[in-house]
Amino acid sequence: MTTHAIRGTFFDFVDDPWNHVGDEEASARFVKDGLLVVEDGIITAFGPYSELSAEYGDVETTHIEHRIITPGFIDGHIHLPQTRVLGAYGLQLLPWLQKWVFPEEARYADRDYAIAGTKRFFNNLLASGTTTAQVFTSTSPVCTEELFEEATRRNMRMIGGLTGIDQNAPEYFADTPESFYENSKILIEKYHNVGRNLYAVTPRFAFGSSPEQMEKCQQLKKEYPDTWVNTHISENPHEIRGVLDLHPDCDDYLAVYEKYDLVGPKFSGGHGVWLSDDEFKRIHDKDASVTFCPHSNLFLGSGLFRLGKAKDPAQKVRLSFGTDMGGGNRFGMLQVLDGAYKVGMINNTILDGSIDPSRMATAESERNKLSAYRAFYSITLGGAEGLFIDDKVGSFEVGKEADFVALDWTQGPAGADWHSQLIADGGDPVTVDDAANMLFGIMIVGDERAVDQTWVMGEKAYQKAAEVEPTFAAV
Amino acid sequence: MTTHAIRGTFFDFVDDPWNHVGDEEASARFVKDGLLVVEDGIITAFGPYSELSAEYGDVETTHIEHRIITPGFIDGHIHLPQTRVLGAYGLQLLPWLQKWVFPEEARYADRDYAIAGTKRFFNNLLASGTTTAQVFTSTSPVCTEELFEEATRRNMRMIGGLTGIDQNAPEYFADTPESFYENSKILIEKYHNVGRNLYAVTPRFAFGSSPEQMEKCQQLKKEYPDTWVNTHISENPHEIRGVLDLHPDCDDYLAVYEKYDLVGPKFSGGHGVWLSDDEFKRIHDKDASVTFCPHSNLFLGSGLFRLGKAKDPAQKVRLSFGTDMGGGNRFGMLQVLDGAYKVGMINNTILDGSIDPSRMATAESERNKLSAYRAFYSITLGGAEGLFIDDKVGSFEVGKEADFVALDWTQGPAGADWHSQLIADGGDPVTVDDAANMLFGIMIVGDERAVDQTWVMGEKAYQKAAEVEPTFAAV
Repeated sequence: MTTHAIRGTFFDFVDDPWNHVGDEEASARFVKDGLLVVEDGIITAFGPYSELSAEYGDVETTHIEHRIITPGFIDGHIHLPQTRVLGAYGLQLLPWLQKWVFPEEARYADRDYAIAGTKRFFNNLLASGTTTAQVFTSTSPVCTEELFEEATRRNMRMIGGLTGIDQNAPEYFADTPESFYENSKILIEKYHNVGRNLYAVTPRFAFGSSPEQMEKCQQLKKEYPDTWVNTHISENPHEIRGVLDLHPDCDDYLAVYEKYDLVGPKFSGGHGVWLSDDEFKRIHDKDASVTFCPHSNLFLGSGLFRLGKAKDPAQKVRLSFGTDMGGGNRFGMLQVLDGAYKVGMINNTILDGSIDPSRMATAESERNKLSAYRAFYSITLGGAEGLFIDDKVGSFEVGKEADFVALDWTQGPAGADWHSQLIADGGDPVTVDDAANMLFGIMIVGDERAVDQTWVMGEKAYQKAAEVEPTFAAV
Repeated sequence: MTTHAIRGTFFDFVDDPWNHVGDEEASARFVKDGLLVVEDGIITAFGPYSELSAEYGDVETTHIEHRIITPGFIDGHIHLPQTRVLGAYGLQLLPWLQKWVFPEEARYADRDYAIAGTKRFFNNLLASGTTTAQVFTSTSPVCTEELFEEATRRNMRMIGGLTGIDQNAPEYFADTPESFYENSKILIEKYHNVGRNLYAVTPRFAFGSSPEQMEKCQQLKKEYPDTWVNTHISENPHEIRGVLDLHPDCDDYLAVYEKYDLVGPKFSGGHGVWLSDDEFKRIHDKDASVTFCPHSNLFLGSGLFRLGKAKDPAQKVRLSFGTDMGGGNRFGMLQVLDGAYKVGMINNTILDGSIDPSRMATAESERNKLSAYRAFYSITLGGAEGLFIDDKVGSFEVGKEADFVALDWTQGPAGADWHSQLIADGGDPVTVDDAANMLFGIMIVGDERAVDQTWVMGEKAYQKAAEVEPTFAAV
């Protein structure tokens, strides 16, 4: 048994900040000089150094200074085999898939390409501060195998599964209901709950899975009720129309997944841009989950997710945030927060009633504002709740797995450094409010350059390179 | 007289790509192995190395390899004294000004603070690849003086002027019509057309300038007809309502500036999010200009600029792009392109008719799509046209000033490097289309990390630091 400790400034959450409007700091836990004790990757003690040093003073300790340590970021929705084609030009969802995505994803049937791409995928995650992700793969089992093999080597908690599509895809890429069922079964038995791996039955989306493939999903979930279910929902108006044409017995998109008994705990639907109030209500009632992917929704022109509606206390849904890389054009969750903030603010142009007074909705508008508390909750503890793994990760609670990042608030693009000195007189954060202001600066003025270190199960998995100064001409 | 040359791969524009729908490369000029000859900062020859080497082979030459060299970026709208407060939390335009902006801008009345802030401002511009900007200052002449003094030291072409606000601002910050007039006059006579400096009569916006201050602007423009006019227009619905309450004789926001004879050549209005079709038409008819600031419009929740409308061939307006730093939360024009692309795509969710068939507008939708051609045109030659300085900068045309950037398409956040290898087999660009694809990657997958060097008047003003490799745990 290996025991060691990390000393530093810690920031995590004990509750959802949306439950504390006007008093959000009540949801956060800030320990200016804290100690995190880790045994075999699991947190066994956490609190102020002054309280724990008597008991743990002799434990080997790494002191991380001048950083804010938060739980590792959780990406609720990302496509491993799109690592190379993120940010392709000019098309909405359906033509974008045909032109850019399927040809690249098909390459992951080749073992060597899959290994190389998967290695880059994990490096990019760690360099962005992401320690857990819910991952789409491809129709080939090779891609899913490499996801779990690499996750095992890195000891990272990942959710994923063979990503079925048997219609509206090119012939060279489509699978069949039967192959999907057989391959999924083999992969579930080999990987689910082995190490930190978790398996998600993954019909790509209801537009790409035939009724026969959806029935196979239903069957898999029945045979393996402990598995996750991951898919897309209501991303784009054209897609919705296509889905409802395929399922004339369904009144809305969610009803399709309900028809196959998939909507409940451990179900996540990515995007949900066009979910109706009634669909949000049913997702709430069934304790299912939605993933908000702002950069993708903007980049593909899908639309503006109604964050303030998803967080309506009368019918709040579980919510993770996702990059949706490559539909989203950024790998990092810090960049996602920038996009999420902007989507919320743009929604408020409508909800503040300044254009159309009949659409004024003050409380929903307030919930659209992504403070640093709401933002960092959403990519740590909130993301864990959204993926039904908050018993395992997402905070520094004793018993959880020790995944965390050390953030340097002075690092970022031009301008970030001087901006950060506005807070705490340029020194370390003294109060929870200082820390929240620094985190807001990181997500809005900075980017993943603030990720100095990423730790997985109590071991350092990534260390950013030291900064080198640029040269300006003398003036 | 100093003559020297730069050899490398050049990319600039000879026309507006929106004039060449379906054949945008006709607007661009790609010289794979080119030579740019500079005498005292002015371009005296430009073309393929093979054609110019006979004549200029003996000139001292800097060979910039494995980079795409474009004209320096032009920022049409930026606030110097907001350098430190970019990205402040949670408010729309008017309360944001009161809470965050005016207190910081007021500090620039202090000479030492203004000098320090201005130095950072220019460093941030150069590190972002920006060589020319149209700049708002503050109510204190000190800030405007330091803008032009630092621009002179760096030999950079800047447009700016004392930024008047005599109402709806705190007493400690407001000026008066008289002080604004007197100070503007002194500054115009001292700086306008001295070196590369250009003066803009700058009423902050019609909500902040009383009718008396607007009359002073009218008088200044009459006395100094060669000066520029820079202001804000139709940014936010609340602001528009406030302006029309102040000017009940005006039917729309533009009419206020028209009333004081300000709208014509050399007039730029920042934002224009809520401009009506009729206002766009009048801006076109009067040969005035608008500046599109996507990050600001998203960050402050102002709304979605109608790019495809501004580029309507029947009434196209001059258009520059701007950061609007600090309402915009990024310093660099490459980041602005990411935001502009997304605004265009989100507008298309409406214009494609998939939600409301009555709003379908296919041609306008097409014009909203920001290809790499349209994007880089907009921040180089297009930006120069938008600021009425296309006789001076914006392309490699002989006689123009030699401001340019050298872009490294492999540099950026996690994922950028492998993505860039999709093009030209991972080598240098061979065709104009390769170069455009690399530039699209820089603006969407990358960021200002791609700016390797920035040159001003033929001299290197900025060199990015060499990259250092991060460390990943062995797997």
